[in-house]
Amino acid sequence: MTTEGTIAVIGGTGNLGAALARRLAEAGRKVIIGSRSAEAAQRAASEFGSGLTGLANEQAAEAAEIVIVTVPFAAQEATLAAIRPYVAGKIVVDTTVPLMPPKVMRVQLPPEGSAAQRAQKLLGEGVTVVSAFHNVAAHKLATGEELGCDVLVFGDEKAARAKVVTLAAQAGMRGIHAGPLANSASAEAMTSVLIFINKNYQVDGAGIKITGALKES
Amino acid sequence: MTTEGTIAVIGGTGNLGAALARRLAEAGRKVIIGSRSAEAAQRAASEFGSGLTGLANEQAAEAAEIVIVTVPFAAQEATLAAIRPYVAGKIVVDTTVPLMPPKVMRVQLPPEGSAAQRAQKLLGEGVTVVSAFHNVAAHKLATGEELGCDVLVFGDEKAARAKVVTLAAQAGMRGIHAGPLANSASAEAMTSVLIFINKNYQVDGAGIKITGALKES
Repeated sequence: MTTEGTIAVIGGTGNLGAALARRLAEAGRKVIIGSRSAEAAQRAASEFGSGLTGLANEQAAEAAEIVIVTVPFAAQEATLAAIRPYVAGKIVVDTTVPLMPPKVMRVQLPPEGSAAQRAQKLLGEGVTVVSAFHNVAAHKLATGEELGCDVLVFGDEKAARAKVVTLAAQAGMRGIHAGPLANSASAEAMTSVLIFINKNYQVDGAGIKITGALKES
Repeated sequence: MTTEGTIAVIGGTGNLGAALARRLAEAGRKVIIGSRSAEAAQRAASEFGSGLTGLANEQAAEAAEIVIVTVPFAAQEATLAAIRPYVAGKIVVDTTVPLMPPKVMRVQLPPEGSAAQRAQKLLGEGVTVVSAFHNVAAHKLATGEELGCDVLVFGDEKAARAKVVTLAAQAGMRGIHAGPLANSASAEAMTSVLIFINKNYQVDGAGIKITGALKES
C-alpha cells in the first residue's frame, strides 16, 4: 500500500477530527480515520461516507503520508508516543490547543512555549511538525456552514507548511503561512480568547480573520 | 488640577503613542503626551494639534486618570519604574509587545507569560493593568485610514477593561473584552505573526478581526 497523498486523522472520531476527515474526503483526499479502537474508527468511517477507512491510531499513522493529530491536550503525550514509531520522516500536523479544564477561557501555555513545540519535542527531530486548525469551530466545519475563520499554519519548514496550507483550502478554509513552529503560541492562546468571547458576547463560534491584501507568496 | 478623564500617553512621541494621542484628542479626550524629555513631549503636542499638552513621563502619569504606555519591550522595565510612584490606584494600559530584535517575526514571550503580566509584576498590586492595542498598525492609525483591526482588551478587572474598550472605540476601532491579563499572550504573540504575514505576503499592515455576531455584554 502506498502512503502517498494519504491522510490519517488521529483522534478522528472526535469533533474536530471527524469534521476535518469528512471535509478532506469530500475534497477527494484519501483519508484514514484513526482511533484508539480500530472498531470505533471503522464505525465512524462507514458513517461519514465514502473515501474513508478506519484503523487503530498506530496503523492509521503507518499508512499515511500526512498525519493530523486531533486530540485533547491531556491526551497529546500518550497519543504521540503511540504513533511515534510510525511517523519518522513524515509530516505530523498537530492541532492541539493547551486548554486545561476547568479554566479553558484562560491562556495557559505549556513550558515548551506551545503545544506544537511540545509535540516536536515528544516526536523528536526526524519528524516534521506543522501546527494548524487551532481556532476552527468544529461544529461549523462539520455542517459545512461559513466558518469565518482563517487557518494559521506554523512550521519551521516552508514546504511542509505549504502542504498544510493546501489541506486547509481543501477543507474549505484559507490557510496562511504564519511562521515558525514557535509562533503557534499565538493561535493556541487565541483559542482561549475565542472561548471567552463566545461566552462574554454570546457568539456561536467566533473565529479570526487576517485582514489586509495578502499577495500569494 | 483634576486627573478625571485625562489620559497620559507615555512614550507618546513614538509611532503608536503619537497616533493614539492624536486620535483620542480628536475624539475630545484630554490627552497629555509623555516623553523622557518634557521638551520633546511639548514639541510633539504642539505639532499634533489642540487638546494636547506635553510633559515628562512622570508628570504626565501624575496628571492622568488613565496611563497608556507605548514603549518598546526593551524600555518597558525602566519606563514602568519611572512612572510607578505616580500610578497607584490608576489604570495603566500596557501596549507592549515582546518583540526581541532581530527576530521580530518569531514569538518570544517573556518568562512571566506576557509583557502585560510583566507590567503588573513591575507595577505591583495597587495598579490596575489592562493591555490592548498590540496589533494596531500605527501608520494606519496615524493617517486615519480604515484599520481592519479589532482591539483585544485584556485585564483582570472588568470595569477597567470596559474603560479601555471605550478608548478603543474613541480611537476609531472596535474594542473587545478578551479575558484576564494572562490572555494578553495571544495578542502579543499575534503581532509577530502579523509581521511575518506582512513580509511573506507583502501586506501593508495586516490586522486581525474577530468574526461572529458579538452581542453587547
